Amino acid sequence: MAELSTVDIDFGDDGLVPAVTQDADDGEVLMLAYVSPEALRRTVDTGRAHYYSRSRDELWEKGATSGNTQSVVDVRVDCDGDTLLYVVEQAGGACHTGYRSCFHRSVASIDDDGETVDVETVGEQVFDPDAVYE
Amino acid sequence: MAELSTVDIDFGDDGLVPAVTQDADDGEVLMLAYVSPEALRRTVDTGRAHYYSRSRDELWEKGATSGNTQSVVDVRVDCDGDTLLYVVEQAGGACHTGYRSCFHRSVASIDDDGETVDVETVGEQVFDPDAVYE
Repeated sequence: MAELSTVDIDFGDDGLVPAVTQDADDGEVLMLAYVSPEALRRTVDTGRAHYYSRSRDELWEKGATSGNTQSVVDVRVDCDGDTLLYVVEQAGGACHTGYRSCFHRSVASIDDDGETVDVETVGEQVFDPDAVYE
Repeated sequence: MAELSTVDIDFGDDGLVPAVTQDADDGEVLMLAYVSPEALRRTVDTGRAHYYSRSRDELWEKGATSGNTQSVVDVRVDCDGDTLLYVVEQAGGACHTGYRSCFHRSVASIDDDGETVDVETVGEQVFDPDAVYE
């Protein structure tokens, strides 16, 4: 038997922790979103990725609208207990722009103040967002 | 020639963005830390991963103390411009606890309020933190 220990997740001042989402098959980092205690509980209990939208101020289940669901294979907790990693089987694409990963732009150069970058699109668009989100 | 476009990075209210760090060789997600404009500029300009410590309130170069440096192969920007992905060649381990990844604990179960989890350690300890950080 593996030994278990108990961790209190360090939800921040806003009651949320960031969760990195990674593809279980090829290891691609798909997105980063935020998670409330209720979103985490539902994720662990159902095996379907849930997050908390800071802009809409509501719990959401990934793919409930778009069909681009995430079946959760593993949930990891980092050393400080203040970041999560969801390892998922991704249906379709994770990004609302139709790309497989939200991280589909690579930095080519940066300006002197460090706030503006030139980027090249490198990822793969796998669905048409206009057809999915109306 | 690839077409370039310009992105203003959306540094948050605290002037920082989260950066996910991934191993270039095997795709393992190693850590999440925060980045200031200056940390990002130094990362892009030098090819060595820089972050900004919220607890120590200072810029830091990964591995400057521990020797566990990160050579940056690629910097990605997400769709909203508010999260970065550093793809790196990691020397030694990324985690201050001596593990290769900070995400070395897997959630086995969760309590009803979603704030406490039982975890199993699954990662690989690759150095002795007591010997590295004195």
